[in-house]
Formats: sequence, C-alpha cells, structure tokens
Amino acid sequence: MDGCPADFELNLAEIQKELTRRRPGQSKLTTPRNEADEFEILSGIYEGKTLGTPIAFFVKNTDTKSRDYDRWSDVYRPSHADFTYHAKYTHRTPHGGGRASVRESIARVIAGSIAGQILKKELGLETVAWVNSVGNINSPVFSNPPENRDSVDTSIVRCPDPESSEKMVQLIEDVKKDGDSIGGTVGVIVRNVPPGLGDPVFDKLEADLAKACLSIPACKGFESGSGFSGTLLRGSEHNDEFRLNSASPSKIPSVTTTTNRSGGIQGGISNGMPILLTLAFKPTATIRKNQNTVNEKGEEVVLKAGGRHDPCVLPRAIPIVESMVNIVLMDAYMRQRAQQPEWFQRIMKDR
Amino acid sequence: MDGCPADFELNLAEIQKELTRRRPGQSKLTTPRNEADEFEILSGIYEGKTLGTPIAFFVKNTDTKSRDYDRWSDVYRPSHADFTYHAKYTHRTPHGGGRASVRESIARVIAGSIAGQILKKELGLETVAWVNSVGNINSPVFSNPPENRDSVDTSIVRCPDPESSEKMVQLIEDVKKDGDSIGGTVGVIVRNVPPGLGDPVFDKLEADLAKACLSIPACKGFESGSGFSGTLLRGSEHNDEFRLNSASPSKIPSVTTTTNRSGGIQGGISNGMPILLTLAFKPTATIRKNQNTVNEKGEEVVLKAGGRHDPCVLPRAIPIVESMVNIVLMDAYMRQRAQQPEWFQRIMKDR
Amino acid sequence: MDGCPADFELNLAEIQKELTRRRPGQSKLTTPRNEADEFEILSGIYEGKTLGTPIAFFVKNTDTKSRDYDRWSDVYRPSHADFTYHAKYTHRTPHGGGRASVRESIARVIAGSIAGQILKKELGLETVAWVNSVGNINSPVFSNPPENRDSVDTSIVRCPDPESSEKMVQLIEDVKKDGDSIGGTVGVIVRNVPPGLGDPVFDKLEADLAKACLSIPACKGFESGSGFSGTLLRGSEHNDEFRLNSASPSKIPSVTTTTNRSGGIQGGISNGMPILLTLAFKPTATIRKNQNTVNEKGEEVVLKAGGRHDPCVLPRAIPIVESMVNIVLMDAYMRQRAQQPEWFQRIMKDR
Amino acid sequence: MDGCPADFELNLAEIQKELTRRRPGQSKLTTPRNEADEFEILSGIYEGKTLGTPIAFFVKNTDTKSRDYDRWSDVYRPSHADFTYHAKYTHRTPHGGGRASVRESIARVIAGSIAGQILKKELGLETVAWVNSVGNINSPVFSNPPENRDSVDTSIVRCPDPESSEKMVQLIEDVKKDGDSIGGTVGVIVRNVPPGLGDPVFDKLEADLAKACLSIPACKGFESGSGFSGTLLRGSEHNDEFRLNSASPSKIPSVTTTTNRSGGIQGGISNGMPILLTLAFKPTATIRKNQNTVNEKGEEVVLKAGGRHDPCVLPRAIPIVESMVNIVLMDAYMRQRAQQPEWFQRIMKDR
Repeated sequence: MDGCPADFELNLAEIQKELTRRRPGQSKLTTPRNEADEFEILSGIYEGKTLGTPIAFFVKNTDTKSRDYDRWSDVYRPSHADFTYHAKYTHRTPHGGGRASVRESIARVIAGSIAGQILKKELGLETVAWVNSVGNINSPVFSNPPENRDSVDTSIVRCPDPESSEKMVQLIEDVKKDGDSIGGTVGVIVRNVPPGLGDPVFDKLEADLAKACLSIPACKGFESGSGFSGTLLRGSEHNDEFRLNSASPSKIPSVTTTTNRSGGIQGGISNGMPILLTLAFKPTATIRKNQNTVNEKGEEVVLKAGGRHDPCVLPRAIPIVESMVNIVLMDAYMRQRAQQPEWFQRIMKDR
Repeated sequence: MDGCPADFELNLAEIQKELTRRRPGQSKLTTPRNEADEFEILSGIYEGKTLGTPIAFFVKNTDTKSRDYDRWSDVYRPSHADFTYHAKYTHRTPHGGGRASVRESIARVIAGSIAGQILKKELGLETVAWVNSVGNINSPVFSNPPENRDSVDTSIVRCPDPESSEKMVQLIEDVKKDGDSIGGTVGVIVRNVPPGLGDPVFDKLEADLAKACLSIPACKGFESGSGFSGTLLRGSEHNDEFRLNSASPSKIPSVTTTTNRSGGIQGGISNGMPILLTLAFKPTATIRKNQNTVNEKGEEVVLKAGGRHDPCVLPRAIPIVESMVNIVLMDAYMRQRAQQPEWFQRIMKDR
Repeated sequence: MDGCPADFELNLAEIQKELTRRRPGQSKLTTPRNEADEFEILSGIYEGKTLGTPIAFFVKNTDTKSRDYDRWSDVYRPSHADFTYHAKYTHRTPHGGGRASVRESIARVIAGSIAGQILKKELGLETVAWVNSVGNINSPVFSNPPENRDSVDTSIVRCPDPESSEKMVQLIEDVKKDGDSIGGTVGVIVRNVPPGLGDPVFDKLEADLAKACLSIPACKGFESGSGFSGTLLRGSEHNDEFRLNSASPSKIPSVTTTTNRSGGIQGGISNGMPILLTLAFKPTATIRKNQNTVNEKGEEVVLKAGGRHDPCVLPRAIPIVESMVNIVLMDAYMRQRAQQPEWFQRIMKDR
Repeated sequence: MDGCPADFELNLAEIQKELTRRRPGQSKLTTPRNEADEFEILSGIYEGKTLGTPIAFFVKNTDTKSRDYDRWSDVYRPSHADFTYHAKYTHRTPHGGGRASVRESIARVIAGSIAGQILKKELGLETVAWVNSVGNINSPVFSNPPENRDSVDTSIVRCPDPESSEKMVQLIEDVKKDGDSIGGTVGVIVRNVPPGLGDPVFDKLEADLAKACLSIPACKGFESGSGFSGTLLRGSEHNDEFRLNSASPSKIPSVTTTTNRSGGIQGGISNGMPILLTLAFKPTATIRKNQNTVNEKGEEVVLKAGGRHDPCVLPRAIPIVESMVNIVLMDAYMRQRAQQPEWFQRIMKDR
C-alpha cells in the first residue's frame, strides 16, 4: 500500500477486526476452511504510526489441503476462472484458483481498513455495508440504513433487519444442505462525505466506485442511488431539489437535497448527501453437484461434486465492499486536496 | 487520442456516421438544438492512415444560445452538476454546464469509432448496443440481440423490436409534451471477443467496462451477464457448463458454454462467449417544470421551466455506450498482446 | 493540461511572454522561420481564472514552407528522427519532422508558465535557466547565478555573463556562416523550494527532473548538484554539513547547508536549498552541408545542404527547460500536499 | 513485479547470481556488513515458469546491528536523507535510513534480472555495465566496451581494463583506510536493441532511462551517447551518417550509422545501434570522520565517526544499473508490441 499519509496512528486491532469479519470459517454459513488471517507488518509503520513509505503486510495461509484441489487440477470448473486463465496465460497453476482465489481480498481489507481509519478521523466519514437480499429474500433495510458496522454484525448473515436475517440464514442453510449456492445483493451507505470528491468526465466518483466494486470476485452488478429503479421514473419524480442547510458564512452555500435519488453523487462529484450503492453478487461457482465440462486436454468430462466452499459469499463480502469503497474515497479525497487546498481548509473548518 | 496503432487506414466516413448517430437534433425525440458535429483533423493522420502519434480532432459548436443559459446562471439546477462543480472548484462557468455538458461525449465517439474499426478488422469483433427499455416499457431484445447497428437504427428510438419501439416512441412523445423526461436501459452485445482479455484482480474486464459505462453522463447502473437477476439463482442454475467447440489442434482447447450467464467474462477475463451488458440511465435532469432549489448566493429560489433538452437520453446514448465499450476492449487487447505475443499469434491464426 | 488548480487568476501576458522567448525568428541567432506563436484559449479558463477542468490552448503555424521539406521527404536525415519514426511506426509524414518537430515544445511552455505562476504565488518559488556554455566557451555563471529571467534576457544568447555572452554570440555567428551548428549546456537554479518534495525510490525528485529534461529535443545529458564533477571528490569534501537556520518553533527544525553539492536534493527529496541542474544539448542535426545517408527505398544517397534551422538551440531552449522543471515541481508539490496536508499548512505558515 | 509475460522459463540461479553481484560483503572493497541475499519466491511462478500474475520475492536481512544506528538516531547525517524524510513525513524511523537504504535495490535487481532474461532470449539484447572511472582514475573502456558481464567481473572493482582496475582498487583501499569515500562513473552498453523502442515526446527512451538511472541511490548525473562532450562539437562533426546494412527485403531498410554519437537513440527512439550511457555516482555519504550537523531537536551537534559503509558504491552499483536499464527496455518493448504487432513480427523474422 503506497502513498499512505505519514504520521497517522493506526489502530491495528481495528484492522484485525475487519480481517476477522472477512475470514473463512467464521460462522456456520461460511466455508469450513479455517484461517486465522493474522497479519505481520513488514514495513511502513514505526512506533504505531505510518511512515509515509510503502506499508507491507504478510498474511500466511494455514489451512490449505492440496488434496482438495488435485482432483480437478486439469478440469475447467464451470463459471470459474480456470479456462480464462489458461486462455490468457497459457501456463497456469491448478492450486486453489491461483490469483483468482478470494484470498486476494485480504489485501483489500487491510488497505481499506487503513483508508477507513483516516477518513473517519479526518472527515467523520463512515462506510457501512450490509446484506440487502439473498436469493429472493429481499430486506427493507434501505428505508432505514444501519448506523454502524456493529449493528450489521448482530446478524451472522450481516442483514440488520432481524426478520429478513432469519429467513436468509434459513435459505443459506437449505442451499448448503443441498450442496448448492445462492447469490444476493449488498447495500452500502457512506455518511459525512464532503461535497467535491470525484472528477468530471472519465474519473467520475461513480465510475471509480463501479470499477472498485466490480473488481470484487463474484460481483456482477452495480447501482448508484436510484440505479435501475430510477429508469422507471420521470425527471420530475427523480430530480433531487436543493434546500439550504443553514445560514452558512462560507463562500459556497451549504445545501442538502430533500430526496437522494442521486445517491450523493451528481455529475460524477459528491454533493454531501450520503452515498448509496447496491451491488449484485452471483451464486458461488463451487457447488457439490456433478457438472459437465471440458479439461485442458480438450476432453469433455464430468466434474464430480467435492471441495469446501461458501454456500453464499455475501456475509464475507461485506468488509471487502466497505474496503473498496473507502479506498476509492481516500484516493478521491487526496486528489481533491492536491488540486484544491483551499477546499481542504474549508472542509476542515466546517467540521 | 494517444497510443493508437500506426499505419491503420481509417474510414473517416464511418467516424462521421457515428457522430451523426450521437448528434442533437437528429429526430423528433431529441433536443431541437441542431449541431452538424462535423470534425476537422488536426494531427495524427497522414494520407488517410494513422501515424501512431496523437490524433487530434476539432469539432465546433454552432448552435449555442447563451440566452438559454443566462437565466439560471447562478442557480443550482436540481440533479445537475452546478452545485457539485461549485463545491469542488469554487469557481465555475454558468455556460451550458461547462465540462458537465454531454458535448464532451463527441470525443468518446470519435475515439470509440477508431477503436471499433481496428477491433472489427483484426478480430471481427463488433459491439452493438440498443435501447432495451424506456420507463416501464421493457423489450424482449436480449432473447434475440441485433446482429448489427443498422438493424438497431431502423428504429428512431434505437430499439430493434418494432412493437416495443413503437410504444417507446409514444411514451417519449407524451413525456416531452408534458415538459418532463424519462429514463431507461441500454443493452449491449459484443461478439467475437477472443478469450483472454482483462486482468485478474483490480483491472477485471467487467471492472474496466463498469468504470467506462458509469463515466457516461446519466448512467446510474451496470450489469454484466445475469447481473441483478443472477442473484435470484442457485449456483446449479447459474453456472455455465463448458462444451468443446471443435477438434482444436491448438495448445488451448477451444470451448463454448451452453449458457452465458457469465456474460462472456469469468474471473475478470473474457472467455470467448459474447459479452452482455445492461446499463441504467436516469431521466434527463433538465425538465420544463418549476422546481425548488438554491442559488450561489445561498438563497432558496424557484427555477422556472425553460431551455431545450432531450426528453430521453437513451437513443443518443447508444453510440456513446458502444464507443466506451470498444475503447476498453481495445486497451485490454493491446495490453494482452504486449504481455502475451504468443497469444496474439494464436488468435490471429484461428481467424 | 489537466489537473490544474481551480480559481487561480492567470496572467495571460506572462504566458505570451514565455512563448515569445521560445519562438523562432526572435533574434539573429535563431532560425529565420518567423512564427508569432500567439495562442487562443479553447477551454478551462473563465473570467481570467482557471476552472479546474482541462485547459486547452491552440497555437497555429503560419510560416511553413512545405517546399523546404519536400526535397528530403524520403531521405533519412542524419541524427534526425526520420529513420526511427519509420522503423517504429512503418508509416510516417515527411512534413517538418512530424511529431519530432520542436514545435511541440509550445505546449510545454504554456503548461510550464501556468505551473510557474502558481509556484511563484504560493511558494515564492522561481526557476531561472541560462546558457552556461556554447561549444568550448564556458561561463562562470554558476558561481553567481542570475536572480531572475530578466537578467538572463539582457543577453540574446541568454548567458548573463557579458564577457561569455559576447564570445558565444560570435561563435554562433561563425558557425552559422559556415552552415554548421553547435551545442552547449544550460544551467538551472530553483530558489525557494520547500523541503519535502519528491518521493523516496523510483520517483525521486532528481529522477523526475531528469526524465523531464531528457524529454526535451536535443538534450543528451543531465546533472543534479555536483553531477559528474562530484565523482572526483571524496565524501569528506562532498558532504553538505547542516546548520540551524534560525530559532524555529516548528516541529521540524529549519536548516540550511553550508555547501550545496547535493543541489538541493537528498535521498530524492528537496532539502530547502536551491535546486541546481546542468543540461547538455547536442548541436542541431540540421546543417547546410552535404551528408551521406540512406532513403526509404533503401538507397545510399547524398543529402544536399538546405532548409532553415537554428545554428544553436540553446537560447530558445531556456524557457522550455524552465517549463519542464516547473511542471515537475508543481506535480511533486501537489502530490505532497495530497499525502501530507499538515506539511502544507506548516509550509504556508512559514511564508 | 506485475505484468511479466507468462509461460517464460526463469533461470533462478541467474537471478541469485545477480543478487550476489550486488550483495554487501562481497569483497574487500565493500562494506563488511555480510548478507547472503538469498530469495524466497512467494508467488507468480509455478513449475519454474512465470504465471503472468504478480511475482513476489522475499529477501530477509540477517546481519543488522541496530547498535550501529542508535548513536545517530536523532541526528541528520550530512548528505543523507534523514532531514529530508523528516521534513517530508514528519515521522521517521532512525533504523538504517529506512526506505532510503540501498537494500531497496534488491528488488530492482530481481526484476531487472527477469527482464534481462526475456530480452536476451527474445531479442538477443544484452546490457553490460562497468566502472568507467573512480575519482580521477579514468579508464579507456568506452573505446573497447566489454562483450559480457563475465569480462567485467574479472575485476573486483568491475572495471574491465586491467591497468585502470588496479589503480582504482588501490585508490579505494587508500580512501577506505582514511575513513573516507570516493565517487566515480559507470559506463553502459546495450547491444541488439531493435529499432523502434521509445516514444516521441515525454516518454523518449532517453528520458525513461534517465529517470530510471537517477532513481538509483547516489546517482547524480546521466549522459546518453556523446552527452556533455557532444556539446563541444559542431553538427557536422556530431551527426551520425546512415549506411545500408545489407540488401534488406523488409519494408523498412536496415541501416547502421558510421559513428554512434547518438548513443543508439534518435528523436527518443532506438535506431538499432548500441545504446551507450554514462552515469555519475557521488561519494558515499557515510564516512568515518567527524562532521558538523543538526539534530531533530534543532541543536547543532558533531556527528562522530562510526558505522560500516562502502568506501565506494560503484562496484555494487553495476548490477543495479544493468537492472534499471533492462526494466526500461522491457517496458518499452512491451509497449511497442502492444501498439505495433506488425513491428514485432518483422523483428522476430529478422532474428
């Protein structure tokens, strides 16, 4: 992780807490593969504070069973990256999906946790994600989004609506018993975003957020604000009217909007309202059922059921999503204070 | 446009054709503002062929009425970028939305047309987008996607299903009469994508496509393959099984999948199946109705109805979407042949 | 020019002044090709102040004589870029060297002048370059570097030492009469650089400055501080000892060094002392003498004397060098205030 | 190291050999600090071949004596990066210079060795560097550059001219006995560079090489081809005339130049002749003599002689210089085959 502000006192326990929210084996809903995911710091931190130079973390796998992978080593598992890696690189490793393993998200969570700590301290900004739906079980959480991560974590499926949570847990257990998997959606709210983050054309804040989210394994859809449902509305129903926030002595008026269908972003730039996102995650590709496929030798074969897997990636995806959002916002924040230090001073004064 | 391959014979008429598909005033469904959008070449092309050095185009506005803009020069128009630009940059121009004007998409279409010509010639790759829905009028086009752009352009709303097209035109005309606007979705299919494009983690092909699409003005949602509807399925219903394509003497087997819920991308890398995308566009923010808002002086004011606008951006968005997709694919293609020239030779031989 | 801070009041006359220092035909020492080099602003500036969005300038050539170029259109001129462009791009334009023409430096000077204005206003930072030697005529200017650009411009060869200047002018006139050309070196001093600019490893301030300078046409050498002459010294002779600058209440002591062999940069980061650079420029490749060479058809031919050229690029290189140095420093300054806003506040308070 | 071509069989012994050429303690001329510098592969290689995904190496320090550093922990060592890091980052580690330690060059050598292996195999390209001068002892090696690294390594000071080598060794030993240090220059030749590498304006091949070289600790000067000595010549003396290389059936004639003052690069692009560079390295800042300086508390103090150091960094710099040159060339080569695959096929056919 390069470019991190220096002289910032990191809360290492907080980083570990986020890793623990992501780790396999954390509940009955996740893969039984058990990893402590404890990290070792290699560089970039001294006496608990960042040095400004690259921060390197090291997290070792402990519970790997190569046997799990051997049986399908030359088979292209359906909807996995085996074939595409082979087609792209010619040479590939059969072990655990190689670079396509969700293990890579450990790095995202560490970096995202650091970004989140800085954003929280400097701006009061906080990103909270939750499981909004699993299969056809849809929750009403967007009408009353959670205040913080703890209220999300009261549910093992990470849906803060108790009724929905219960149904989701039941569905995931059923699916698991059946050797199958299921998809779902994640909701995200970011509060205390200062207006002015994001760039006008190619690097719109929504564009960077979309890229970051779609880079998460299994994510296949992204909505900002009203998203797809906004396409059903007329402009007069969809537009967010501005209101004065308060008597503001600042050069730029302080405003809010009476609705937030824009999801906190207008013209690619944050407007000070909460950022609202929805993400779609497909069902895990690994299932305990026979599937027809092809192997590296060009033979049609049957992939036999086996291996350990998450029946539903959603609960473990939450800290990954929050991390990617925080990384994008931290980058936008740093770019903005590079270009507009006067903006930075205004924002700091308003807090 | 920098980095374009040299010695490529450009079809300039083709570029102009795409610009004409994007231009205002092209039909009764678009803004009456009339721009020819003819381009002048400043550099990078000699004797009709690219030089490899930066290509510069120049397109002048002709039909601008400053009067149109004067009346709201210090008002933050709801769901426009006026406030966010002011908050970000402190200083802003009131003329036509400045950098936030959709005029910037001219540059996207020129670059995208050039990328598209190279992809077509070298790979046979073709990107075709269409209007899939307008408001609550949903078309069945995904079950039978258009073969080419001409079949899309038979409809002025750019929906290749005649029945849906007729209803969409009617709806847009109604909305326009009412001084209002309406959103919708765009469908995209890309055929003849070679397997192997895209990168494993942060630069997944879907991530780059999502960023490119969300950077288009008014785009608020993105789906790859099954997208949000895939979250309702179980893994056993969603996975795409592989089949052998044919006896392939190549080092890498040639495969297809029996279904395409992955939308042509697995693990962030193209698998050779058509890429399928859906995009959400919000209703145009400019409407001919009074709206409550705030001005730069910090006063609550009423924005009076006025100005010229598109009641529905969807038909004009089609060439922009196709362009952004082609730019992303061209970049991925160039990165891939940089890293894997042996892949390039294999792909060329297979054609 | 993208990423420029917004709300900055530009001095357009100052930009034109720098362009005029660069333009051909400015004195008897330069090419007789006469260009006014007047610019037109296309975007990014409103009411004299930057908008924060991309700034586009347009400068037209007026005095081009295609005839000049026709005669050698298929000949690889020695030590020009004709052959290398052909080898790289297969297709090339014979007109005026295409992208390899020094005309491209107009863009550098405009951007550099804007960067220079911001650096001057915010930091008092000023970059002054001069012609330090021409051929074997070496000036003693480094022992008494010029305070500002005006004192450099008192000499048409831009060497502020009158005695050396006179000899240089004579040498260049002799060389010109002979149809030949001559090289030389440029000295650079940057005063009021705050300590802390530059990055530790790959993006050392010297590394970025070296890249920027070597990107200038005809530049073939770069020295930071003692440069090559420093290789003759022992560490005990070369090290710069620190002294306290004054009683400084700041968290970081304010220091100077008693010598400045480091040239203001230590470990890749500015230390607050003046930055000192020396650059080597080769003799102009265009000469009025017959030369043996090869043409595109693969024939050995004699390139006949002809065309208009600068017998010595050094005087016109001065504003280009200053511009590239200012662009690098502005970028480093913006990166540093992105990463360390507390540093920015400290620097601002000290001024 | 990201972006490395896949399916390439790495010679790991070759990488270790280059690390051993860089390691401390390798001869009586280097610091007595003894490090084996053995590497462990963490990722990116499977069955001896690259996977195309990021390659991670891990090299542990074994011989660190914190005591060595404790005594000057709060003192700004003259011409070291202690003060500049403090000014930049506010918070810094006193241990071994932190990120400013030459230990970071291990990463450069590993990556450079991998790049070098690919360039050697695909193009026959080979980069050889040598110590060209130490203090005022100048060698005549440029008139007869070494064919390979082995002929350089016959000398412990890595100067392939036996007479110069002997004098250099003596000088370094004298300097070491005196507790002092000394600088010098490095010569570089790269043979079998295909014409066409490098980009026209900002990313000229010389510009990228200059940046890469100036990023090496202690490097303060850079010359391409004739460099500073070329400034003394007239154009008619300096220009490199072209000759036909042979009857070439290719679309682009195959040429050589009768002289090589351009150092293999014209207009920022390689012309097929050997690349020739000279680099200046200042004397090591660490010396065993008392020096006046300042500490973090803002007190003027005397830094007492002590610690272990290299009296002359030149011999150990050789593999670092070769590595940085190879990394730049590999990047340029990949960019060129991305943009111009037809060029790649032509180059491959000519070999």
